[in-house]
Amino acid sequence: MKNLTVIKVGGAVVEDPQMLPSLLDSFAAIPGPKVLVHGGGRSATQMAERLGVETVMIEGRRVTSAEMLKIATMVYAGLVNKNIVAQLQSRGCDALGVTGADGGIIKGHRREVRKVDYGHVGDVDCVDGKALDSLLDAGFIPVVAPLIHDGNGNLLNTNADTIASEVACGLTQYYNVTLVYCFEKPGVLADPDDDNSVIPAIDTEKFRLLTADGTVSGGMLPKIQNSLDAVKKGVKEVIITSASSLDNLTAGTHISL
Amino acid sequence: MKNLTVIKVGGAVVEDPQMLPSLLDSFAAIPGPKVLVHGGGRSATQMAERLGVETVMIEGRRVTSAEMLKIATMVYAGLVNKNIVAQLQSRGCDALGVTGADGGIIKGHRREVRKVDYGHVGDVDCVDGKALDSLLDAGFIPVVAPLIHDGNGNLLNTNADTIASEVACGLTQYYNVTLVYCFEKPGVLADPDDDNSVIPAIDTEKFRLLTADGTVSGGMLPKIQNSLDAVKKGVKEVIITSASSLDNLTAGTHISL
Repeated sequence: MKNLTVIKVGGAVVEDPQMLPSLLDSFAAIPGPKVLVHGGGRSATQMAERLGVETVMIEGRRVTSAEMLKIATMVYAGLVNKNIVAQLQSRGCDALGVTGADGGIIKGHRREVRKVDYGHVGDVDCVDGKALDSLLDAGFIPVVAPLIHDGNGNLLNTNADTIASEVACGLTQYYNVTLVYCFEKPGVLADPDDDNSVIPAIDTEKFRLLTADGTVSGGMLPKIQNSLDAVKKGVKEVIITSASSLDNLTAGTHISL
Repeated sequence: MKNLTVIKVGGAVVEDPQMLPSLLDSFAAIPGPKVLVHGGGRSATQMAERLGVETVMIEGRRVTSAEMLKIATMVYAGLVNKNIVAQLQSRGCDALGVTGADGGIIKGHRREVRKVDYGHVGDVDCVDGKALDSLLDAGFIPVVAPLIHDGNGNLLNTNADTIASEVACGLTQYYNVTLVYCFEKPGVLADPDDDNSVIPAIDTEKFRLLTADGTVSGGMLPKIQNSLDAVKKGVKEVIITSASSLDNLTAGTHISL
């Protein structure tokens, strides 16, 4: 099987006009088939402010009212996605922007209301790996905005980290998939205050140890857990690294079974 | 060669929540490969108002400032395009939304300033029929928003009628293409006040006669001229009809050489 790289880049990078060009240079230079998954939350929040729509976050997650879904659709699938696509095209990278609705790539359902009603937020049911593969096979580089559809004509807002992981897992039957999460830090740090303390490799046993002794805590826990889940579902390796290290994927934290 | 239908639907239909569902029913029912090209000007104007951005029109054409280009990108490629895609998906139609930037499908340049500076408005240089054909070949139904790219990373706003005609011409080497313009009226009318006076067929000679005796005038002139140009470039037939007649393409005005 061919190798394929799925890169998730957060809003902080994608929405920074200083950082975006070098990220896109690095992405365009990655050899072989690849997929870019992006966020856009900051721009959505800004646009909501300009439109007088209140942004409500519960435990770091955006509550998506009907108005906020419109804004997310405009910002993620329109503004952010199409600017990335146009800029990748100018770098000779045959980018094609999609949401989960396009080509029926990612289908899901509106999240059930338990304690919190997150509104128009979707949980993924299935990824059509064949549809994605046919785009890749035709030579296109999919650029995925974090929206899915429910099969009944409705769009749903979905966390971009989740989209990246689902897309990576959905492509494992066609490719040897490496999933790369780019964020502000150079990797999982042994000492959160020391950027030189990157833990180079984590497997299930190491994760247990790091959790037990408190080295890893907070928001990093679900990130590593999700990465291990992706590896269990067939992704070859998950790399947590900084956007500026995309040129050198031997850096960062490598997560495998 | 296979038959292919390119349908252009204006903003008045696409943005009307009453009319859109039946249009999408009709579109989904058209047999064989097809392409939908849509507008979205009214929504863009509304969004501009909400954001306090002034809409400037010169001779019916939108002047596209940097702010207006952002709005057009959000509304056309985001809000309008993705809602159409999700709703077509719910009808079993494997829609995939694109702009001219996606897959490098439509490239152009910023319009030269002559009397008027239209801002970020693009004139089409070329359509990559092969890229569009590879989407169709993979079973996707392209839904095209009226934006193109300049190959240097910039998006440009382009008239949706022009996009439809360029897409139709760009596909003539792969398909027998029929181009359908859906608008408010049932076709080209001999008497503008009588919807029953549809002229069923127009060719070059008939167009000359209709122009000479004043039957056809105003905004209908460039529409028919553009249609004849498309036919000269290899489109089999152009049909000007109402959105509600999409089920019966024998109605309307049929334009051929």
